[in-house]
Amino acid sequence: MSFVNINHGLHNEPRGESAPPRILVDLLEKADVRFNGNRPWDIQVYDKALYKCILTQGSLGFGEAYMQGYWECHALDQLFTRLMAAEIDEQIAGWFKLRMLIEWIRRYLFNPQSIKRAFQVGERHYDIGNDVFAAMLDSSMSYSCGYWESADNLEQAQRDKLDLICRKLQLQVGERLLDIGCGWGGLMQYAAENYGVSAVGVTVSKAQQRLARERCKNLPVMVELKDYRRMTGSFDKVVSVGMFEHVGDKNYRTYFNKVKRLLVDNGLFLLQTIGQQKTVKSLDPWMDKYIFPNGKLPSAREIARSIEAIFLIEDWHNFGVDYDRTLMAWWQNFDRAWPELQKRYDERFYRMWKYYLHSCAGLFRSRQGQLWQLVMNKWQYEGVYRSVR
Amino acid sequence: MSFVNINHGLHNEPRGESAPPRILVDLLEKADVRFNGNRPWDIQVYDKALYKCILTQGSLGFGEAYMQGYWECHALDQLFTRLMAAEIDEQIAGWFKLRMLIEWIRRYLFNPQSIKRAFQVGERHYDIGNDVFAAMLDSSMSYSCGYWESADNLEQAQRDKLDLICRKLQLQVGERLLDIGCGWGGLMQYAAENYGVSAVGVTVSKAQQRLARERCKNLPVMVELKDYRRMTGSFDKVVSVGMFEHVGDKNYRTYFNKVKRLLVDNGLFLLQTIGQQKTVKSLDPWMDKYIFPNGKLPSAREIARSIEAIFLIEDWHNFGVDYDRTLMAWWQNFDRAWPELQKRYDERFYRMWKYYLHSCAGLFRSRQGQLWQLVMNKWQYEGVYRSVR
Repeated sequence: MSFVNINHGLHNEPRGESAPPRILVDLLEKADVRFNGNRPWDIQVYDKALYKCILTQGSLGFGEAYMQGYWECHALDQLFTRLMAAEIDEQIAGWFKLRMLIEWIRRYLFNPQSIKRAFQVGERHYDIGNDVFAAMLDSSMSYSCGYWESADNLEQAQRDKLDLICRKLQLQVGERLLDIGCGWGGLMQYAAENYGVSAVGVTVSKAQQRLARERCKNLPVMVELKDYRRMTGSFDKVVSVGMFEHVGDKNYRTYFNKVKRLLVDNGLFLLQTIGQQKTVKSLDPWMDKYIFPNGKLPSAREIARSIEAIFLIEDWHNFGVDYDRTLMAWWQNFDRAWPELQKRYDERFYRMWKYYLHSCAGLFRSRQGQLWQLVMNKWQYEGVYRSVR
Repeated sequence: MSFVNINHGLHNEPRGESAPPRILVDLLEKADVRFNGNRPWDIQVYDKALYKCILTQGSLGFGEAYMQGYWECHALDQLFTRLMAAEIDEQIAGWFKLRMLIEWIRRYLFNPQSIKRAFQVGERHYDIGNDVFAAMLDSSMSYSCGYWESADNLEQAQRDKLDLICRKLQLQVGERLLDIGCGWGGLMQYAAENYGVSAVGVTVSKAQQRLARERCKNLPVMVELKDYRRMTGSFDKVVSVGMFEHVGDKNYRTYFNKVKRLLVDNGLFLLQTIGQQKTVKSLDPWMDKYIFPNGKLPSAREIARSIEAIFLIEDWHNFGVDYDRTLMAWWQNFDRAWPELQKRYDERFYRMWKYYLHSCAGLFRSRQGQLWQLVMNKWQYEGVYRSVR
């Protein structure tokens, strides 16, 4: 039997004729998931090549098989939540000791987030096309977790998140703000318009730089295409949202030391990052290959160790549950815009993006993924910092 | 020259005739502190034996010399703040490599916070006499940091702290609360009276147990004289305030695992503890000998490492600056009550207590000491936890 072509395979009936390997059935059973079952979260197999993909390539193969159309699932978010809560990926990993060893050696010998390599993620992911992000994100183009404490739609959740950051940083008129990993400039625009600050943003994506400059053209905002390690100057406040995930654990102390040098003695630094509950050295291989090359999610332990004796932590806020809602809102926006987007992107991209957003939603819904905002300062800080929510 | 007797030496004029050793002068200069200088934070030397105490015994000798009346200082809190901000203790430590090695071996080979030894702190510190604590503390007898965000006196600050804990724990009528290290029962009393919970408290101090039972006698509260490791049962919420400082890093994971077993799947755990910015294995030797035998202040790194894969951290709140105000309020209360207390305590106790409260105030004012409240739960937690301030 040949591989089913993606465009034909998608809408086929599940093919029950070839029984799945016992070992995979048992594995899925731990998460109460079945091949060709009739619950919304069960996996509908369109091509038995799926089994070989999983057995030889683990979670990478599982994702690639989805992109190829070898399987489908009615409620992909529920499937991923179950797989992640049961930590199936760790059990699959048993087969991949050798692969992981090779990966570990690669990371040990090389610095995947060296300055030269840091631009890869800019080119591969953030330069995909502003149209995808414009369709998926809210009007501020915040490509990070919204704050849903009192919001009931994405637009408000992102606005509340931006305002929460400004309030936590106690931004004052005339202050200089540095935004490390500024994206499309939404936070700088909001802070300049609502809090009267001037801002400098750095990004490694040309597409982001272009749009950020456009968005902030009448504001005291500069946008530089630069690695954060090349940054100089002195700022009253520093913020970094959704960029630490690209820093890499070999560079954590370099990163914090660099921010410390860029911050005035009486300044504040806010870091927003995804975190994971356990210290794991590498990103999920599918995510690393298709979405965030060279990414690495920090654990609380790694952050605390890296910050020790560099910054004083005033506040550590976790609102990981809000990323689930954010990702599902992005998915709805993307899916709604697909009729227009499909003129420029193929079906494989659509499935890749669907897999990406739903697997991340599952990461947060299972509480394996965290979303942290930390507020830090130096020992020289003169005031009394009161954390807010 | 013989050692000056404490009762005579206290009010002597500073004796300038014997110049202090150059090495100590240079050391203090780093903190802008002088022997026999005329600023409020300078050290007034009443007996040159002070120098030998520091040179041979470091910070332990410095404290013991104060208790002996070898030196005085007009603004002890300011002195300690300066010494701690300059991290003088680490520089003094250079002389004590051997002493520290011995101490390290002691802690490595033995578990200073074993169940058998855990009662030492109860007997030595908390059993000192309820009269000292009753005079020094607020009416709830909270022997931990108050919350001064909107309070302007100790009574209110402690009440706000108790309420903050209850709100963070989302206490509901009828819930079962476990208080590990319950002190004199103030928190259980407040929670039972204001939030309608039932509570079980554990303490290693007989004096605390007696008074806690008295305070809570008409409430659904039980107070047990027990090591936390002997505790059994199942609770909706667990709280532990100012007790983790006695747990010891060898027992951190045991502690968190124990709490996890005592907590229902949908429960919340609040930990309030003093923290320090850097990972240091042992307490200041003076503090260990005279105030908190076998104490150990955790670093963020140690806490994050110990919690990993046991609890999910929802919130990490630092209000260390409030401990400075709390300690100074305690000092004022203690000093005001001294005319009455001195019928039962001697001058050496007075100086020991003064040194204790002021050196701790300096620890927090210099921001070397932190005060953390962490809210944690299990992965099975069903709701969306929103942190509050």
